[in-house]
Amino acid sequence: MDRRETGRPLPDSQEQTPRLLTGTGVSPGSGYGPAYLVVGDIPEPAPGSRHDGDARAERSRAEQALDDVAADLESRGARAGGEAEEVLGAQAMMARDPGLAEEVGQLIGEGVAAPRAVFEAFGKYRELLSAAGGYLGERVADLDDIRDRAIALLTGLPLPGVPTSAAEPFVLIARDLAPADTALLSKDVVAAFVTEQGGPTSHTAILARSMGVPAVVGCAGATAVAQGTAVLVDGASGRVRLSPAEDEVAAARNADEARLAALSEVTGPGATADGHAVPLLANIGGPRDLDAALAAGAEGVGLYRTEFLFLDRDAAPTPEEQEAAYRAVFDAFPAGRVVVRTLDAGADKPLAFLPPPGEEPNPALGERGIRLFRRYPDVMTAQLGALARAAEGTSATVEIMAPMVATAEEAEWFAQACRTAGLENAGIMIEVPSAAIRAADLIQRVDFFSIGTNDLTQYALAADRQVSEVAELQDPWHPAVLDLIGAAASAASAAGKGCGVCGEAAADPVLACVLVGMGVTSLSMAAPALAQVRAVLARHTREQCRQAAAAARAATSPAEARTAARARLPELETLAL
Amino acid sequence: MDRRETGRPLPDSQEQTPRLLTGTGVSPGSGYGPAYLVVGDIPEPAPGSRHDGDARAERSRAEQALDDVAADLESRGARAGGEAEEVLGAQAMMARDPGLAEEVGQLIGEGVAAPRAVFEAFGKYRELLSAAGGYLGERVADLDDIRDRAIALLTGLPLPGVPTSAAEPFVLIARDLAPADTALLSKDVVAAFVTEQGGPTSHTAILARSMGVPAVVGCAGATAVAQGTAVLVDGASGRVRLSPAEDEVAAARNADEARLAALSEVTGPGATADGHAVPLLANIGGPRDLDAALAAGAEGVGLYRTEFLFLDRDAAPTPEEQEAAYRAVFDAFPAGRVVVRTLDAGADKPLAFLPPPGEEPNPALGERGIRLFRRYPDVMTAQLGALARAAEGTSATVEIMAPMVATAEEAEWFAQACRTAGLENAGIMIEVPSAAIRAADLIQRVDFFSIGTNDLTQYALAADRQVSEVAELQDPWHPAVLDLIGAAASAASAAGKGCGVCGEAAADPVLACVLVGMGVTSLSMAAPALAQVRAVLARHTREQCRQAAAAARAATSPAEARTAARARLPELETLAL
Repeated sequence: MDRRETGRPLPDSQEQTPRLLTGTGVSPGSGYGPAYLVVGDIPEPAPGSRHDGDARAERSRAEQALDDVAADLESRGARAGGEAEEVLGAQAMMARDPGLAEEVGQLIGEGVAAPRAVFEAFGKYRELLSAAGGYLGERVADLDDIRDRAIALLTGLPLPGVPTSAAEPFVLIARDLAPADTALLSKDVVAAFVTEQGGPTSHTAILARSMGVPAVVGCAGATAVAQGTAVLVDGASGRVRLSPAEDEVAAARNADEARLAALSEVTGPGATADGHAVPLLANIGGPRDLDAALAAGAEGVGLYRTEFLFLDRDAAPTPEEQEAAYRAVFDAFPAGRVVVRTLDAGADKPLAFLPPPGEEPNPALGERGIRLFRRYPDVMTAQLGALARAAEGTSATVEIMAPMVATAEEAEWFAQACRTAGLENAGIMIEVPSAAIRAADLIQRVDFFSIGTNDLTQYALAADRQVSEVAELQDPWHPAVLDLIGAAASAASAAGKGCGVCGEAAADPVLACVLVGMGVTSLSMAAPALAQVRAVLARHTREQCRQAAAAARAATSPAEARTAARARLPELETLAL
Repeated sequence: MDRRETGRPLPDSQEQTPRLLTGTGVSPGSGYGPAYLVVGDIPEPAPGSRHDGDARAERSRAEQALDDVAADLESRGARAGGEAEEVLGAQAMMARDPGLAEEVGQLIGEGVAAPRAVFEAFGKYRELLSAAGGYLGERVADLDDIRDRAIALLTGLPLPGVPTSAAEPFVLIARDLAPADTALLSKDVVAAFVTEQGGPTSHTAILARSMGVPAVVGCAGATAVAQGTAVLVDGASGRVRLSPAEDEVAAARNADEARLAALSEVTGPGATADGHAVPLLANIGGPRDLDAALAAGAEGVGLYRTEFLFLDRDAAPTPEEQEAAYRAVFDAFPAGRVVVRTLDAGADKPLAFLPPPGEEPNPALGERGIRLFRRYPDVMTAQLGALARAAEGTSATVEIMAPMVATAEEAEWFAQACRTAGLENAGIMIEVPSAAIRAADLIQRVDFFSIGTNDLTQYALAADRQVSEVAELQDPWHPAVLDLIGAAASAASAAGKGCGVCGEAAADPVLACVLVGMGVTSLSMAAPALAQVRAVLARHTREQCRQAAAAARAATSPAEARTAARARLPELETLAL
């Protein structure tokens, strides 16, 4: 009855753990390595446990542990940067709370052992947070994480979390992964991901695709696998094989190599089998992602997220700093296109140099994206000015777009601001349902659309991207989402303007064909996904793509839509996709 | 530049306060009375303030104050019931936190005066909550409210909040109103509402319409009005006149009486001027709302919210208790229709008798409505069973609908559950955009639709109903919302099934005509709005409604849509609407 109760680890024995688990494949390829289970709960220190009488030494042990936890969180944050740094920094602040330290000290003074004192002192705060109401829970989890880390340090248990280096790459298994767990992971450490929860647009799926690592999500029973078991993961079919035979591993390796070879046969600009050009672009978060984009043969940048310049700093970036960051990207694609998304901040990604945002019960439905720009037009004017200066003298085609546009009036306001700044190609993200529904109104006011399928799906289905309980609804294959994409692409086409897709949907090679079939004019994705999308498009005609799209839109569920589209795309099999 | 900075009170002087303010009229009628400004901040007790040395007496004074605050919150909650009781109960728990009392006691022991001790003790918790991140803010506000109430009691200041009785009804003026402010208000106390923030679907607007009290929202400068100033409010035009002349007040009263007389001329079932029947139904929260619905001539109940039976209790209601509550409503409309919405709970409205919900960063996009039912099917089975038993032997037409349905598969699952329980008329709320977009798929699986315009608007525009910063987007007149309503109504009509509207849009007399023009088959609203909707429909033909709908949908903004629709409905003027 309670879904949270399903998938709990079974007692670990060969009789009870099946040799084959299945889930949803969300990032193709095969991965093999020892299972690394993300550690779950740290046991509660026994009530009434006492120290040996040296309260002063015990107190300093506890202080040291809390301090180490805070320092570790801060250093992991600094190494990861971006949103992860912010999240981890806030957690570190909690660990350094002086009231908490005092409470711990007092309990130790009364004879309580340090681990138990930490446990009890945190309990008081925990209660307050819990009592305060439902959506405080996430902070309770943060608090528990700090407590568990401190207790682990004090008792010699392994720290909860994910190791950042390994002798051989491991298969990371967890109920679900949080951004904090994965901030420092790399392909050298992780051979594959397997999670019990999550769907095709979960954090794990997105991360895996952007790393080019195979992944299976929604895999029931995965956390019952014993630590260190050899695991073979097929990120296309969703099969997870435990202790496979050597020939199985070899066969999977061969298939994978054949698949990669088939993918790499196709090079050059993106196009369908009958030569209809579909520029294939990369999503980047800053100049540091350029190498991967160029190596994967991106024809340009379809989504340049500019947040990294603005988050985690006390002052707005200087005009010169912005200009340099933008120019570096423009210069990397002298003959290509670079689509820059203006700052997408909000209550969940606050800017330290602006007044703190109001309290928002649902930040995803709050004052973010262009809505924040309208309140702080100076920030936008400065960004557009820096973009205009960086665009001067570049041969790249520079296009600018605003996030979270919902109405024709907002579209017009943004386009006007771009023109005033001297920027010619002004577009908008289509990620709010109203913008897709009234696409014919909005396209009159701008030069192009770029569809953000993750947020569009989130809003169209009213299903949070971050919540695994509603992951099933969070599927861009939902026919309602396809209808919205189709509406935006048709409106753009009727006006003779471009309509790209820069959401995760573009990285799904089957869905990529459907998008092209609906009239989407370019696809932008994490660099590792480019090769397979290029290969799939090259093997299907535009007409096949159209038929796949029509079949998908005639379905009444995401699963039916996927099956119907696949049935119209005969070459998927040969690419093992 | 900062919208939050606009509308701050000007220095209070006749020169600077204009005699006429304007905002958006959201609940028609005129109201006159002395201005009552909701008290803002309680000043911080001076740092370093000390008591006279009797720590024990001071401590008991502080404890008494916190206890009184908790008791007051609890008693206000009990009187208000429903959601307000839940909110206020959680706040009372914070006020009774033993850790907090201990902290206050310790500070008083060190000589700190009680008000300052309360201030400082709360500061520590406040910091923890603030540090934890953006969406904790709402709980910080709750904590501040408790602190301010306790300090007000200790220092003899008036309690913040709204009085619940008055010698003559006052015009309540605030920046914005929270549910806690308004839980106990009645028409005897409030002549009109004026708020600086908020839009047509804000809490204030909804409350005012359901009370039948005139209201103006988004009224810049309102909080600069001096306490006690005589104020005349026109809830249709949005004009707020300060210290009006006697003849102005008299003229407004006469116009209001004439308007009410014109409204009351029309009685009987809802229909257009040319006799097209549009059943007019009432939204109710339980049997206690039946008298008002019957008095207003409701032809039945279009939305029976069943949450009141489930919230704020330790155990699920017994089958007998549920059955009795449902039967009371069915019996009230022996010849009418009663549409029951099954339990709509979630992370923001948790049920005490189920495991605590997970942490949801955006509860509006989380596991609520039918999503929660799928996890706890026993709760649904029990509710449907009680409904089926209550429906036995009643002559009312009983219809059951589920909230938050997003997909055809969910619609089918719910309809099947209803049939299994022996309930024949199974429908769904249309409040998630995907359900409206794919209405043709969904209507095949159910017997009727009922559109919830508040949530539909919230999701279609990705704009939180609770956040005044995005209130401008929260407008059901947005052409994208009209398109979604039109799609649902057309799909139902093509299938020969009904499509009602039970959101706030139905209570807007102009929008009601547009809805009928789009093919909506019944309208359900708060009882006080029935008379004006009945009167407006009776004076316009179905064809005029169709033309108003077409004109509204051809517009590109909510304001244009409203103006275009009004221009096609010539009789609005005669009703002063």
